[in-house]
Amino acid sequence: MSYTLPEFLAHAIAMEEEAAERYLELADMMESHRNDEVSALFRDMHRYSLKHRDSIRERVGSTELPKLKSWQYRWRTPPEMGDEDAFDYMIEAYNALKYARANEVRAMEYYRSVTGESGDAEVKRLAGEFAAEEQEHVEALDEWLGRTTRPSQTWEQDPEPTR
Amino acid sequence: MSYTLPEFLAHAIAMEEEAAERYLELADMMESHRNDEVSALFRDMHRYSLKHRDSIRERVGSTELPKLKSWQYRWRTPPEMGDEDAFDYMIEAYNALKYARANEVRAMEYYRSVTGESGDAEVKRLAGEFAAEEQEHVEALDEWLGRTTRPSQTWEQDPEPTR
Repeated sequence: MSYTLPEFLAHAIAMEEEAAERYLELADMMESHRNDEVSALFRDMHRYSLKHRDSIRERVGSTELPKLKSWQYRWRTPPEMGDEDAFDYMIEAYNALKYARANEVRAMEYYRSVTGESGDAEVKRLAGEFAAEEQEHVEALDEWLGRTTRPSQTWEQDPEPTR
Repeated sequence: MSYTLPEFLAHAIAMEEEAAERYLELADMMESHRNDEVSALFRDMHRYSLKHRDSIRERVGSTELPKLKSWQYRWRTPPEMGDEDAFDYMIEAYNALKYARANEVRAMEYYRSVTGESGDAEVKRLAGEFAAEEQEHVEALDEWLGRTTRPSQTWEQDPEPTR
């Protein structure tokens, strides 16, 4: 899909805002289970997302942006071991990191597909920049995953259907 | 997981509110593509969800409810043919109905698991009642799916990982 600049910016803002909200939830969750290190990481990610959103908003200025549907920007819900265990499942730092990672990868892939397909030079440039940023987030999460103990219930599979 | 009554009611309210919002989006989407019949169905579902939420709220009265995390009540995002096609994909009534159905099934299974596992008689009773209600929604959506033309790109697989 070849976006106009306002369409693209609407996606980017909604995605950053969504990421910020989810990171805050994850930070609170980690904090309530006394995992202060991972909580601090998620709070940093929360702040970065808000900062990025604000800088995109500045760029938008008074341009009117289209209203998006939630499935165009929302994070995927984490896969579950069974619905009733969703809560227990996410309190493990490892699983929370994996959940965040899956959604950062999704954002990265989204931006890459826009870079590849857009006919608008500015959309192309911005999408490339944002894809690189998401890649850094994925790498940061991978570092943390490397240092985090794997719980007995993990989620290793890509939960998305193959395309 | 065995919920207390306030925990259970918090889930039920959040799930109804989420369903109401998603049905409204789907109704608008169908309307903008001139599918007035399916749009009307989604508007009905939107109204039912709000009514159900309101009746649960009445029951809650002034009891304080716990604050939930988004992954405990949000609808799953629809599976995609490719991120850039998410928009095109959902404009098909068939796919929108399938998306709604998958989330109604998820709600039904959630309520059933609560009925089966709860130690609180009132939670058990309400969860059973709500599960039956969700089952009616699934049946209504199935009827519509039976009458709706399948597009070339459909989603037949259960997108969730097997448990």
